[in-house]
Amino acid sequence: MGSHLDTQPTGGRYDGILGVLAGLEVLRTIHETGYQTEGPIGLVNWTNEEGARFPMVTVSSAVWAGSFPLETAWNCREVASLSQGPELRTIKQELIRTGFLGETPASYEVQPIGAHFELHIEQGPVLENECKKIGVVTGAQGYNWYEIAVKGRDSHAGTTPLHSRKDSLLAAAKMVTASNEIAKEFSGLVTTGIFSAEPGSINTMAHTVRFTLDIRHPSNSVLTKMVERCRQSFERIAREDSECGVQVIWTSLTENSAVEFHPDCIAAIELAAHDLCFNLPGQSSDHKKWRHIVSGAGHDSCNVSKRCPTAMIFTPTRNGMSHTPDEYCSPEDCILGAEVLMGAVIRYDALRGQRGQLV
Amino acid sequence: MGSHLDTQPTGGRYDGILGVLAGLEVLRTIHETGYQTEGPIGLVNWTNEEGARFPMVTVSSAVWAGSFPLETAWNCREVASLSQGPELRTIKQELIRTGFLGETPASYEVQPIGAHFELHIEQGPVLENECKKIGVVTGAQGYNWYEIAVKGRDSHAGTTPLHSRKDSLLAAAKMVTASNEIAKEFSGLVTTGIFSAEPGSINTMAHTVRFTLDIRHPSNSVLTKMVERCRQSFERIAREDSECGVQVIWTSLTENSAVEFHPDCIAAIELAAHDLCFNLPGQSSDHKKWRHIVSGAGHDSCNVSKRCPTAMIFTPTRNGMSHTPDEYCSPEDCILGAEVLMGAVIRYDALRGQRGQLV
Repeated sequence: MGSHLDTQPTGGRYDGILGVLAGLEVLRTIHETGYQTEGPIGLVNWTNEEGARFPMVTVSSAVWAGSFPLETAWNCREVASLSQGPELRTIKQELIRTGFLGETPASYEVQPIGAHFELHIEQGPVLENECKKIGVVTGAQGYNWYEIAVKGRDSHAGTTPLHSRKDSLLAAAKMVTASNEIAKEFSGLVTTGIFSAEPGSINTMAHTVRFTLDIRHPSNSVLTKMVERCRQSFERIAREDSECGVQVIWTSLTENSAVEFHPDCIAAIELAAHDLCFNLPGQSSDHKKWRHIVSGAGHDSCNVSKRCPTAMIFTPTRNGMSHTPDEYCSPEDCILGAEVLMGAVIRYDALRGQRGQLV
Repeated sequence: MGSHLDTQPTGGRYDGILGVLAGLEVLRTIHETGYQTEGPIGLVNWTNEEGARFPMVTVSSAVWAGSFPLETAWNCREVASLSQGPELRTIKQELIRTGFLGETPASYEVQPIGAHFELHIEQGPVLENECKKIGVVTGAQGYNWYEIAVKGRDSHAGTTPLHSRKDSLLAAAKMVTASNEIAKEFSGLVTTGIFSAEPGSINTMAHTVRFTLDIRHPSNSVLTKMVERCRQSFERIAREDSECGVQVIWTSLTENSAVEFHPDCIAAIELAAHDLCFNLPGQSSDHKKWRHIVSGAGHDSCNVSKRCPTAMIFTPTRNGMSHTPDEYCSPEDCILGAEVLMGAVIRYDALRGQRGQLV
């Protein structure tokens, strides 16, 4: 079992933390009841999942999975806004300072895991809106991040006719609007969260606008198509629509393929969810209190799934709100999530016992 | 004669400065030639026209014209980004420090002006594009500035379905696009130069976007219609288009009526321009090298025109670029502008002599 304890700077008390504390409770429960597992069961707190202080998301699970070298992670330096000292410190410096630079290699080869189960809040409104209690996560969307720079010409808002403008902000606004249409067309997601304009004066057009695109889809091929359509659309807008034309420069920030979780892990969670939802109010043969769901966000489980069978369990999230102090999952839903986690782990443990796969 | 010597932080060497130096040259030329004017002729350097360091544009001419009290101007405090001291200083403090707090009241009643002529670079591309050398400015566009706050909800870019979003940035992008359509429809100008998004994270929707609108038209009634159309359009976008609706809050920053300059001053400039353009290459009975033009920007002359006959003269501006170190007007065009300024002043001086209006 694994999840993370770090949060966003103004994050909530459930994102990641629920999965670690629930895993601890599972271990304690197994221990207290004297239940004999087929193989060892453990818990991982994956360091720096959010990438908030050290700007590499899910960095520890990525190192474990061999996605990039340990040195790259060690040398990752904290962001200035969250630093407390005169100089920016690296992950390695802080691991040493806090006494957490252990001797066990973070490597799937040296330290393999038989299977990985992660309980997490959904961070979206789907379960709540459909009155479901458990999401059996079958995979995660692919997502790409880009920074788009739009370069035009700064000129005077009062003296420059529309047909003489190279208005980077107007062009960027049209691009954001167009990217939303593309998201709808492909039933995917496109979001712009950062948008800045230089020089930033009321009566001067911006010469440069930079904005981000977060593009997501459960299918890698559709994701690729969405990116391609955005590129075509932005080129057209830059050429035709911003009166005299602007320049568009794409920078890829991260590209993450869609992930499909393992059928054995998914099956173990389904069985546990089915059993544990059986007595819930509203549960019937016609209406299950759990459903399959695709994770919209990236998680450590996405890295881990490259190296061992993996799946995730989601709990409802009030108003779908996450990365905010208002983030909330009721105690009842947290308990049910932890029970499904234990049920799935016990079932998978039994399965590997039958198969003799005791890592 | 009057214009200004202050500039934008990264402004050029012509905006304002040309008018003051040309006025000085006119005075010297009149003096050197021994020409006897009908009445006194003087030169004003209007302080803080740009409003860059002290954020009140054309503040001195506004005080002179009685548009607001002297104390309001004196108490105007410098912006932090241009301050050089530990505390932000006021206009009055800096006038005292620099020795420029004179004893002559800045008041059209105590210190009247018979007529005001201002030579200025066009700051736009119209004269250059049409191969004209002189713009006879018949008035100035009205312009209103607004800050628009769009409030939605910050939520996770990967886990929030499009139909559950209150995406303030998407809504604002649609509003900027719509405002440009409205500008085209009314043959006016709408510009967004500032656009900021909070909290500003790639995978989190912005809960609040603030952007500015600079709306201009030579007709006050059309300007009012353009603002009204923007309000209607933004309300519709906020209600229908940003999936779950966002809130839109308008704050008016400044409203400036369109100005019509005085026919006598315009006529004096026309006559001077006609005479001085007579021998220019390309000038013919079919093709004048000067044209009438409406100022896109605000100027001290707009304030002054409330209290005395006023008009302006424009010179070509390379690529229409102003408020940038690349701002340029050729020496030949500067000279011709100064000659037209002197010709207009001499003609108007003769006119007031005939009329006995010797202020």
